[in-house]
Amino acid sequence: MRVLRVGGAQMGPIQKADSRQAVVARMVKLLDQAKAQQCDLVVFPELALTTFFPRWYMPDQAEVDTWFEREMPNAATRPLFDKAAAYNIGMSFGYAELTPDGHHFNTSILVDRSGKIVGKYRKIHLPGHVEFDRKRTFQHLEKRYFEPGDLGFPVWRAMGGILGMCICNDRRWPETYRVMGLQGVELITLGYNTPAVNSQRDSEGPEQRLFHNRLSLQSGAYQNSTWVVAVAKCGTEDGHPMIAGSLIVNPDGEIVAEAKSEDDELIVADCDLDATIFGKETIFDFKRHRRIEHYGRITAQAGIVLPPEAT
Amino acid sequence: MRVLRVGGAQMGPIQKADSRQAVVARMVKLLDQAKAQQCDLVVFPELALTTFFPRWYMPDQAEVDTWFEREMPNAATRPLFDKAAAYNIGMSFGYAELTPDGHHFNTSILVDRSGKIVGKYRKIHLPGHVEFDRKRTFQHLEKRYFEPGDLGFPVWRAMGGILGMCICNDRRWPETYRVMGLQGVELITLGYNTPAVNSQRDSEGPEQRLFHNRLSLQSGAYQNSTWVVAVAKCGTEDGHPMIAGSLIVNPDGEIVAEAKSEDDELIVADCDLDATIFGKETIFDFKRHRRIEHYGRITAQAGIVLPPEAT
Repeated sequence: MRVLRVGGAQMGPIQKADSRQAVVARMVKLLDQAKAQQCDLVVFPELALTTFFPRWYMPDQAEVDTWFEREMPNAATRPLFDKAAAYNIGMSFGYAELTPDGHHFNTSILVDRSGKIVGKYRKIHLPGHVEFDRKRTFQHLEKRYFEPGDLGFPVWRAMGGILGMCICNDRRWPETYRVMGLQGVELITLGYNTPAVNSQRDSEGPEQRLFHNRLSLQSGAYQNSTWVVAVAKCGTEDGHPMIAGSLIVNPDGEIVAEAKSEDDELIVADCDLDATIFGKETIFDFKRHRRIEHYGRITAQAGIVLPPEAT
Repeated sequence: MRVLRVGGAQMGPIQKADSRQAVVARMVKLLDQAKAQQCDLVVFPELALTTFFPRWYMPDQAEVDTWFEREMPNAATRPLFDKAAAYNIGMSFGYAELTPDGHHFNTSILVDRSGKIVGKYRKIHLPGHVEFDRKRTFQHLEKRYFEPGDLGFPVWRAMGGILGMCICNDRRWPETYRVMGLQGVELITLGYNTPAVNSQRDSEGPEQRLFHNRLSLQSGAYQNSTWVVAVAKCGTEDGHPMIAGSLIVNPDGEIVAEAKSEDDELIVADCDLDATIFGKETIFDFKRHRRIEHYGRITAQAGIVLPPEAT
């Protein structure tokens, strides 16, 4: 048994007007709860420090940049790092990263029990679009404000196991889990900000969006025999509803903890990293069963290549 | 709307002593039902003509070969082909294929409305093991009796759409769906013979096995925006129980038809192939969203490569 007690720190809405200091104070409160429940690791959502700003069209780059962090930790987040280290709790959270040389990423970090950043991931599967889209009921401008991640899908030996991260829309892509699975990942953390309605299809509401969330997380966990800890920022931000439904999924693809609210809420599960072994050694023993000679299209082509028309 | 009315022709158990002629008579009865319900296409299970013989250890290759078909159609299956053509119904079914040059495959074929074989697939992800394994509560010798498929995951323009096939354990591997998805697949057919218990873990019974079946099929459909028609051979064959749970899944990953019995049973759904378009053009628009530069491990390595140990 290698048990990590993991807290999924779901966060309710963050309005545009909310300061980072106010948000960090909420995160510290969730850390307090995690300490009381003896958590080893706490997972916060994607873009945990601000509202989900890609829903807003901003032609002025200076305004866009106000949503980004130029260093981490910084003055606003220092209390979070200090508290986590004082509690001896590891953590991961997401934020918008502006690098010294001017690159913009949707980023998450892994912080060890001492408060040291030991891993960084930059979101690869950016959803949405680049230009203002009048056909949508609301905007989703991640492709405008961020560059695709340039760090691949690394894993880290940390917290006594092999940990990986991904962010939001990454969870819908089986490639995300598989690249980490091929590095022996035992626990994947991810945060998400997912609108409760589809901006391009009115009929698709929160029930279906929650179903797709569960389906993606559970299949990724099962097919790679790994724990998955998925944490929402949810509720209604400035009139825009987002799904909740934070989950912890075991290596059999089963849900072992699930959020009940659409607000700040800590879900907790004991994740035995040794529970990943059975699947990795039997039905998903990749080395015995995978046949890479037939997978070529997966890395050779991004888009669809249709079969020839009948002649 | 391009609607195919598809029948999933679940089959109850086939005992070792049952003749192919008796089995084909059952398949023809299912075709009769499909005709009465105006089906366009009928999907039969994996190894539809015989018992699931890989559960039996047979040291004598001549005995093994009695379970294989040397040509298709042959005398036993000719009535099935004739009836399907007379009904103007397309079909797919699985059988053990022995080629003229002595190769053994776990195969399925796609037959058009005229009774002509227009597609062949040979199972790539063979589960189980090669040698007798005394640690298992029963044997699963697919890796002994079959070679891995050598035809890749092709798709075919047939029945007014783009169709693909896979077989049983293939459905647990996201690579299976993705390689077909990258060719624009609109409907995937598959059959399975899945033991109701895990031969290597007593605690895993039919409920969990059915859950994994649904999870694999639904995620594969959703993540590639394709219909999936999955058909069991089920019930108890010579004392060995297999799960039922045949399903038809829509391109949103939702179950639209599900078998209720563990016996011969036709499930039917109207599959609008145009319902695949929305997903393929939005959230799963592969060309806009996939980032193949970060997927290299998927085709470069079959097994796990662990990260370096901390120094």
